[in-house]
Amino acid sequence: MKVIRDAEEMRRWSRGQLAARRSIGLVPTMGALHAGHTSLVDASVAADDVTVVSIFVNPAQFAPHEDYETYPRDFDEDCAKVETLGGTLIYAPTAESMYSKDYATYVEVERLQEGLCGGARPHFFRGVATVVAKLFNTVLPDRAYFGEKDGQQAAIIRRMVRDLEFGVEIVTMPTVREADGLAMSSRNAYLSPGERERALSISRALLEARETLEAGERKAERILAPVRKALSSLEIDYIALVDADELTPVDRIEGRVMLAIAAQIGKTRLIDNIQFDAGRKKESVPKPSKTSRVGPTER
Amino acid sequence: MKVIRDAEEMRRWSRGQLAARRSIGLVPTMGALHAGHTSLVDASVAADDVTVVSIFVNPAQFAPHEDYETYPRDFDEDCAKVETLGGTLIYAPTAESMYSKDYATYVEVERLQEGLCGGARPHFFRGVATVVAKLFNTVLPDRAYFGEKDGQQAAIIRRMVRDLEFGVEIVTMPTVREADGLAMSSRNAYLSPGERERALSISRALLEARETLEAGERKAERILAPVRKALSSLEIDYIALVDADELTPVDRIEGRVMLAIAAQIGKTRLIDNIQFDAGRKKESVPKPSKTSRVGPTER
Repeated sequence: MKVIRDAEEMRRWSRGQLAARRSIGLVPTMGALHAGHTSLVDASVAADDVTVVSIFVNPAQFAPHEDYETYPRDFDEDCAKVETLGGTLIYAPTAESMYSKDYATYVEVERLQEGLCGGARPHFFRGVATVVAKLFNTVLPDRAYFGEKDGQQAAIIRRMVRDLEFGVEIVTMPTVREADGLAMSSRNAYLSPGERERALSISRALLEARETLEAGERKAERILAPVRKALSSLEIDYIALVDADELTPVDRIEGRVMLAIAAQIGKTRLIDNIQFDAGRKKESVPKPSKTSRVGPTER
Repeated sequence: MKVIRDAEEMRRWSRGQLAARRSIGLVPTMGALHAGHTSLVDASVAADDVTVVSIFVNPAQFAPHEDYETYPRDFDEDCAKVETLGGTLIYAPTAESMYSKDYATYVEVERLQEGLCGGARPHFFRGVATVVAKLFNTVLPDRAYFGEKDGQQAAIIRRMVRDLEFGVEIVTMPTVREADGLAMSSRNAYLSPGERERALSISRALLEARETLEAGERKAERILAPVRKALSSLEIDYIALVDADELTPVDRIEGRVMLAIAAQIGKTRLIDNIQFDAGRKKESVPKPSKTSRVGPTER
């Protein structure tokens, strides 16, 4: 498996691909690859001429008390997986080369980075946005692939790409689940059998909520109440029903929404979500009514 | 003169240039082009295969009480100048296309954006860094040109490019001055004849300080005191002698330093600086002394 560790070499390689008019797909990962990552690599291999998988456990998105040191790492195994999947190369820069001692520059996606996981992890998303900007500038992808499971992250990256005009197409792929419904995550490895059993209630509650949405329920509270009840024995960080782009809570289900959950299971923080498209959002045009006749002298 | 206003069209044009292996120079401006800008365009025309001059009065770098509305604008005159200088095209996006109503993403260069002009203009440099990142992502330059007169800006852009790995070479060109020494600035047009006369004391003090530096003075206070005295009748925002990269105040002149001044002349805020290279900075290696013998049992 071809591995590049140096940013300049990476950019040179990518410029060569672009000069040869080959499209570049990027799958940014922190390694410890599982079936969720596999679906992203598969999508890129199918769509792009070359597929770069980046493997970088990004210190900027971990708080000091979090699991940066213990985050699962298995570089050789990851390389073997990417090779089997048909990925073209692995970009694996070092933390020292990514963040010099006098490192100073961060990308902030205001508002979107503040709610949901941003509450418990206030510097998390600026770390994510910053490292993704760096990877885009080095790998020069045409498309980049993210999992729907990290729903807030995907919304933030989409917004960053639009606002900073990165010219990269963001592709999000559906959450891959274990046979019992648990969303794939590198952090699932931390769970004891008992914790894992308790964690299952999250995906069960989400999948039941999806059925309620599919049955036509459009009041947010009617979706949220049963989820809160089902998870009442867990240590919940948040249960939120938000607009999938703005990440602001909704009262009624319109347009694309996300029902997102974060919970602490023992020492492990898990997140999961479902996304649902209720069809075109109604424009907030004032309806004509008896009290709002607009006459020629009004503006 | 070829003018592009649409970001997608701009990127398509630049991709075409890169595919044809032509190097792209970018001169980012807010228009109202003067001899300072001319030197940047000249440098790019000499070094790059194609030269893009962006003209965009960037609302994100003006505070509500500042001169965004009244900032000098003369698009036709600017186009004629760029054409005469041999620039290839003008990129002039609209404010609405650059900043949508739900715009959320900003590039922050911490520490460097806080001192000097960052004190009086707390959101200025994030506005600058953000718009330059957007221009880089759209124009895809190999080199970008900035004036030394905006010394803090140049240091911030260099740091941003290094940290976010933009792969753009930043070229800074010496400050261009009027015959009487006043640094060229689009805002000089605001000055009454009397104000202009008072403004001259800034460049005079800087040029005298440069002579003192060139004569070998290495104590910061001996440089600063005469400048403060010469400008005591002006409304000074700051007079600072800083490391040219870190922008932190220095006591002794070592390495590359910047003596920077900001002053309010009537309603006009003017900045100017000189930069001076005192040669290689001494490494801060602890000297051996009687009290610091490191024995085998010490670490």
